[in-house]
Amino acid sequence: MTTFAVVGATGLVGKTMLEVLVEHGLAQDVRALASGRSVGSSLEVSGHSWSVAEATPEAFAGVDIALFSAGADVSLQLAPQAAKAGAVVIDNSSAWRMAVDVPLVVSQVNADDMAAHHGIIANPNCSTMQLAPLLAVLRDAAGLRRVVVDTYQAVSGTGAEAVDEFRTQIEAHVAGTDKTARVYAHPIAFNALPEIDVFLDSGYTREEWKVVSENRKILHLPDLPVSCTAVRVPVFVGHSEAVHVELDRAVSAQQARELFAAVNGVVVVDDPQAHAYPIATQAAGTDDIYVGRIRSDISISDGRGLAFWVVADNLRRGAATNAVELAEIVIERGWLGGAR
Amino acid sequence: MTTFAVVGATGLVGKTMLEVLVEHGLAQDVRALASGRSVGSSLEVSGHSWSVAEATPEAFAGVDIALFSAGADVSLQLAPQAAKAGAVVIDNSSAWRMAVDVPLVVSQVNADDMAAHHGIIANPNCSTMQLAPLLAVLRDAAGLRRVVVDTYQAVSGTGAEAVDEFRTQIEAHVAGTDKTARVYAHPIAFNALPEIDVFLDSGYTREEWKVVSENRKILHLPDLPVSCTAVRVPVFVGHSEAVHVELDRAVSAQQARELFAAVNGVVVVDDPQAHAYPIATQAAGTDDIYVGRIRSDISISDGRGLAFWVVADNLRRGAATNAVELAEIVIERGWLGGAR
Repeated sequence: MTTFAVVGATGLVGKTMLEVLVEHGLAQDVRALASGRSVGSSLEVSGHSWSVAEATPEAFAGVDIALFSAGADVSLQLAPQAAKAGAVVIDNSSAWRMAVDVPLVVSQVNADDMAAHHGIIANPNCSTMQLAPLLAVLRDAAGLRRVVVDTYQAVSGTGAEAVDEFRTQIEAHVAGTDKTARVYAHPIAFNALPEIDVFLDSGYTREEWKVVSENRKILHLPDLPVSCTAVRVPVFVGHSEAVHVELDRAVSAQQARELFAAVNGVVVVDDPQAHAYPIATQAAGTDDIYVGRIRSDISISDGRGLAFWVVADNLRRGAATNAVELAEIVIERGWLGGAR
Repeated sequence: MTTFAVVGATGLVGKTMLEVLVEHGLAQDVRALASGRSVGSSLEVSGHSWSVAEATPEAFAGVDIALFSAGADVSLQLAPQAAKAGAVVIDNSSAWRMAVDVPLVVSQVNADDMAAHHGIIANPNCSTMQLAPLLAVLRDAAGLRRVVVDTYQAVSGTGAEAVDEFRTQIEAHVAGTDKTARVYAHPIAFNALPEIDVFLDSGYTREEWKVVSENRKILHLPDLPVSCTAVRVPVFVGHSEAVHVELDRAVSAQQARELFAAVNGVVVVDDPQAHAYPIATQAAGTDDIYVGRIRSDISISDGRGLAFWVVADNLRRGAATNAVELAEIVIERGWLGGAR
C-alpha cells in the first residue's frame, strides 16, 4: 500500500487531488496537510474524512508520494525536505518546473522523463497540460514549426478566494449593487482580463511564459516558437484555448482528428453543424481533454497549418488528475524513493 | 439639414445609431423605421422621442442617408430601393460587404473608397472594425505578412434577445435553477462558445471568415493571410481580441505604441505593472478603440512580430459610431445622392 500526502489539501486543487485519489482507489493511506491555520479541521471529500495536519518536514516520514499544491513558496521550502525524507514529490506549483534536474511531465507525453527524477517531479501548469498532448502527436506526425495559443481561463484556476469574489460580483450584478475586486485587479464578472500571474520584462505575463517554456520542455523542443495571450474569463471551471499551429508537413483536419482521437484521455468533439464542440461547462468535472473546431488554418499555405479549440477541467485534468496519473506511473515502474 | 433614416431602429444597434446621431448633432430630422410589428410604437433615446414607422420603399422618399441595421435579408431587399429613392445607404448588415461595387469602409482607414459608391456603403462587422485601423498603420509602417486573431465577443453583438437570455441564465444561476438556451446552442453564462454565425465548409464560421475577408478588402490586401477563432464570452458589451501579427520589417513594442496612439479614435492603454490594459467593461459606452498588452511576439524572429490586445464597444465603435462617421464624411465631401 502506498502512503500519500497531499500538501495544500484545503485548496481547490488539493481537494480535487483527494477526490481523484479516492476515485483511483489510492486513498487507503493519505495524509491531508496544510498550513497551521487549517490544522485540526476536518476535511470531507468524496465520502472520506481527513483530519488536516500541519505541513512540516516531519510530516513526510513514511510518505511514498507527496502531492504538493500549496503555492511556489511552500514547494520551494518543503519539497526538498519531503524528498529527503524519502517521498517522491509531485509538485503542482511553478517552483520547480523549469529546474534542469526536475522532470516536467504530462502523463500522456513524456512519462519516461520521470526515470531520472531526484525526488521532485513537476506537474505542468493547467494551460500547458491540455495542450501538450495535442502538440506532441503533431510534432511526431508532421513537425512543429510555430504555435500560437490564446486562452480563455476559468476563475477556479486562481483558487477558492477568486471563485468567491466572482460569485459575489454576480450576486451584486443581480442585486444592482456595485462590484468590487480584490483578488483580481478588475471585476472578472462580465469582463475578459488579459492578466494572469505577474508581468515580465518581455511584456508577456508569467502565465503566458509558462505556456511557452513548459511546452518546450515537455516536448523536448527547447527552441519551439510559441506565443500566447492568457486571458481570464467569467467561467467557473474549464479552460479553453484557441490554437493555431504551423507544421513542417501538411496534416489535414481529418488526419488531425484521427491523431488526436488516438491519444489517451483526448476526446474529439467536432461536429459543428450539430453545435458539437468542446465547451467549459461540459468539460467541468471530467478528466478528458476535449478538442474540436479542427480545421486547416487558412492563413498557412500548402495545408501545413491547423487551427483547433481545446477545453479541459483545469482542476482535474489541468492539475489533480495528471498528478495522480504520474503517481500511478511512478508506482508501476518502481520509481519510488525520494532524493537520490 | 440632412434627413436620416434608421432602419431597424428598435434593435440594439439601431437604438445606438439614434443615440450617436443625437450626440453628433445630426438628429434634427431622423426617421425611425422598423418592421411592421413595431410600427406606431414610440422610441425614447437620449431624451428624444421617435414614432416608429414601417420600413417600406416609400419611406425613403426625401431621405439623404439611411443607416441600416435590420439584418441581411432586409438589407438585400430594401437597401437598393432606398438607394434608388436617392438615399445613400450605410448598411451594417453583412449583405453587401463583399459586393465588388460596394465600398466596405472603416472611417479611419479607407474613407476614400466611398467616392466611388453606387448608393450603398457597407459598415464592417464589429470584430473587423476594431482591428482594421491597427492593421492599417502596421501595413503602412512595416508590411503585413500574417495575422492571427482570436476573439472574446460580447453577447450584445447577437442582439437584445441574446442579452435577455444571458440575464435570465445569470438569475437562474443565483437562484440555483436550470439554465436554458434558445438563442445560443449552449448556455453562454459561464462558458466560452466557439460558434458565432454559421459554419462554412472550411470549418471556419462565417464570423471568422468576416474577419479574414473584410480586413483584406478594407486594407486593400486581397491575399493577406489571416486566421481567426471567434468566441462568444459571458460579457455584455465590449469585444476583446488577442492579435498576433507577423510583419515584413521589425517594429518594436514602443514604435507600435506610437503608431497606434497616432490613429484617430485609438487609445493606447498599456501600463501592465499598474494593471492598465483594455477591458470590456471600461470600453463599454465609449467610441474609442483601446489597445494594450503591446509586445514583441516572441515566436517570430528578428522583431518582425507583434502581439497585442484590442477592445472596443461593439455596438458603438463596432457598428453605430463608424456608420455615423461615414455619414459625416459623405456629407462633408459632397458624396450624397443614392444609386448612380
